[in-house]
Amino acid sequence: MTWIDDPAFDTRQPFGPQTLPYGVIETEDGTGVAVRVGDHALPLAPLADRLGEEVAAPTLDPLLAAGRPAWTTLRAKLTELVGQGTAPTGAKLLPLAEVRNRLAFTVGDYVDFYSSRHHAVNMGRLFRPDGEPLLPNWTHLPVGYHGRAGTVVVSGTDVRRPHGQRRGEDGPEFGPTQRLDIEAEVGFVCGGPVTGRVSTSSAPDHIFGVGLVNDWTARDVQGWENQPLGPFLGKSFATSISAWITPLDALAVARVPVPPMGHKLLDYLVDDQPWGLDLRLEVAWNGSVVSTPSFADMSYSCTQQLAHMTVNGATVRPGDLFASGTVSGPDREEWGSFMELSRAGKDKIKLAGGVERTFLEDGDTVTITATAPGADGAVVGIAEVTGTILPAED
Amino acid sequence: MTWIDDPAFDTRQPFGPQTLPYGVIETEDGTGVAVRVGDHALPLAPLADRLGEEVAAPTLDPLLAAGRPAWTTLRAKLTELVGQGTAPTGAKLLPLAEVRNRLAFTVGDYVDFYSSRHHAVNMGRLFRPDGEPLLPNWTHLPVGYHGRAGTVVVSGTDVRRPHGQRRGEDGPEFGPTQRLDIEAEVGFVCGGPVTGRVSTSSAPDHIFGVGLVNDWTARDVQGWENQPLGPFLGKSFATSISAWITPLDALAVARVPVPPMGHKLLDYLVDDQPWGLDLRLEVAWNGSVVSTPSFADMSYSCTQQLAHMTVNGATVRPGDLFASGTVSGPDREEWGSFMELSRAGKDKIKLAGGVERTFLEDGDTVTITATAPGADGAVVGIAEVTGTILPAED
Repeated sequence: MTWIDDPAFDTRQPFGPQTLPYGVIETEDGTGVAVRVGDHALPLAPLADRLGEEVAAPTLDPLLAAGRPAWTTLRAKLTELVGQGTAPTGAKLLPLAEVRNRLAFTVGDYVDFYSSRHHAVNMGRLFRPDGEPLLPNWTHLPVGYHGRAGTVVVSGTDVRRPHGQRRGEDGPEFGPTQRLDIEAEVGFVCGGPVTGRVSTSSAPDHIFGVGLVNDWTARDVQGWENQPLGPFLGKSFATSISAWITPLDALAVARVPVPPMGHKLLDYLVDDQPWGLDLRLEVAWNGSVVSTPSFADMSYSCTQQLAHMTVNGATVRPGDLFASGTVSGPDREEWGSFMELSRAGKDKIKLAGGVERTFLEDGDTVTITATAPGADGAVVGIAEVTGTILPAED
Repeated sequence: MTWIDDPAFDTRQPFGPQTLPYGVIETEDGTGVAVRVGDHALPLAPLADRLGEEVAAPTLDPLLAAGRPAWTTLRAKLTELVGQGTAPTGAKLLPLAEVRNRLAFTVGDYVDFYSSRHHAVNMGRLFRPDGEPLLPNWTHLPVGYHGRAGTVVVSGTDVRRPHGQRRGEDGPEFGPTQRLDIEAEVGFVCGGPVTGRVSTSSAPDHIFGVGLVNDWTARDVQGWENQPLGPFLGKSFATSISAWITPLDALAVARVPVPPMGHKLLDYLVDDQPWGLDLRLEVAWNGSVVSTPSFADMSYSCTQQLAHMTVNGATVRPGDLFASGTVSGPDREEWGSFMELSRAGKDKIKLAGGVERTFLEDGDTVTITATAPGADGAVVGIAEVTGTILPAED
């Protein structure tokens, strides 16, 4: 019998005691680390004597730097604390509706991968209709690129429609994007010591936890600017991430092998343990579920991605963030972007009440959620990432 | 008559009183901000009472955040201080040979542009021999992409030859890069308040100063990985930047219009003042000068680049760094990469003593320097960026 009086704090609910994701909240007492318990936030600073100094900070940064042994110890202490019968001294439960979340950590470098075969094939068909949809390198390495760390924003932050150049009939045109899209992704937050060249087997020591990422994309801007050096302004205006980061340790039961590639990978990309994750995503557009991608379909694991990202000696730092790339499955109802769902604007996507869409309109809200299997039938949650489109500036 | 007894502290020398670049040095007294005077470093922390609190920090970060009025005030105070007849109390000159430089600021986001028409054409010919060398978007916007901020290193840091995947005859091969290259670039260090959408006319308020950048590149890794999302591991292992950042204010006389594009640019890219810079670069390979690119040939100015980078609402933060892209002129002796100088490895590049090269060998050192015209015949220096190649790890 736990002291936490919240029906959502239950193993059959996504944010029961099996999950315990970390975030940062602003309250009248200041800004600090908290853990989500059901539909409440539990600020940790008042419990720092028991839990450790890392949780007394205004961000997750010290906890990220502390490394895996500290993460495991803290999770064990928290599990004990939330399971006890009486409230610990100093503990205060705040309803989620009353707290304001902040971006939980300082983003170091942000890397975005492209690891869904179905997404890569879909995009290849749309962007290069005359060529092979999958480029030759794709089955040999997790293709990726660096995004803009300074415009990563916490879930709930409004997203202003960006201006940009797009291809026009007589040269480029300029104005608010006419093809504002989402990409439903899973993000991995790095921690532990700064180091170069991480092997697949040691990668979990450098991955603190998991959130959902919406890699908002202006497709018309992207389509005009992206050759030969890849995405830039089409994606750099905003990237949203969950307010609450689920510890990697909470996903032990969700681990699955990635789908076979069909040929042997180079040694440095071979996982000695399964590090695919059986996460079920759900994409809701103004409340209508338009897609339910399965993360288990992704062709490269987070450990393969981290090993690849550092194989050239590049260091990984606490706060580095990498995202999976758009999560798309083989079937239409599992595609993780509106570019795919609308076939580049040719098909209408049907929302509730007879509303139809191709790309985002001002005032639209997109919310991505995900769950994973836990032990003994429990459900582990990855916290939602949501955002609403504001009109372009004049 | 100045109290600084150093023949290199002279307006006819690059680091005379007309330049006064800022850096961070490690001494027995700790790590702190310094200004370069001739061949000496002058630590500023002991002079903070006179110069302001920003210079008492262990990095340039507080000074970058302070903004242009503070930069102008500090430069005026410093000019007065170094010009006085007797040494100010607390001042201590350290020979450069005896100080160890550190990366002068915390790099926020790092963006790399591609703004030399000659470089873009040269690379287009090498990478896409059957197509138009210049892609259609190039004359309408400064093409760019995000690089890895966490692996920006200060001049003098050794660069270890990276491993990576490259295209092989029977699928990809893995090993140390066989085509390690440089890109001679000019970097712009941002400062001032965090803001979105900077106009070309307000851009100078967000550009603190200028350094040289060597964007080390593994061409074989780049050639295999870069489609469809652009450069990633081929460049993320190391990017070197000058230890000393020359204030933008020191380059007033060097300002020139950028070469005409041949058609009207979109309004947001139009400079109302000339912000091209007449910098003469020199690239030395093991002491032999192999190229002397002119930065005045670049087709987009730093103010155009910053306006473009933020036109979608992306914020710019103090410590953000953007680089010009490889500086190449029309003639062979002005090409800023070994890929160009060796025509993708087909031609030998001749160094002193009968030595020939195509790409970098272990132990090679590359040093890039630059000067600009100052007032009344003075020469303004942009501090060197240098690095030596270490063998790949086993």
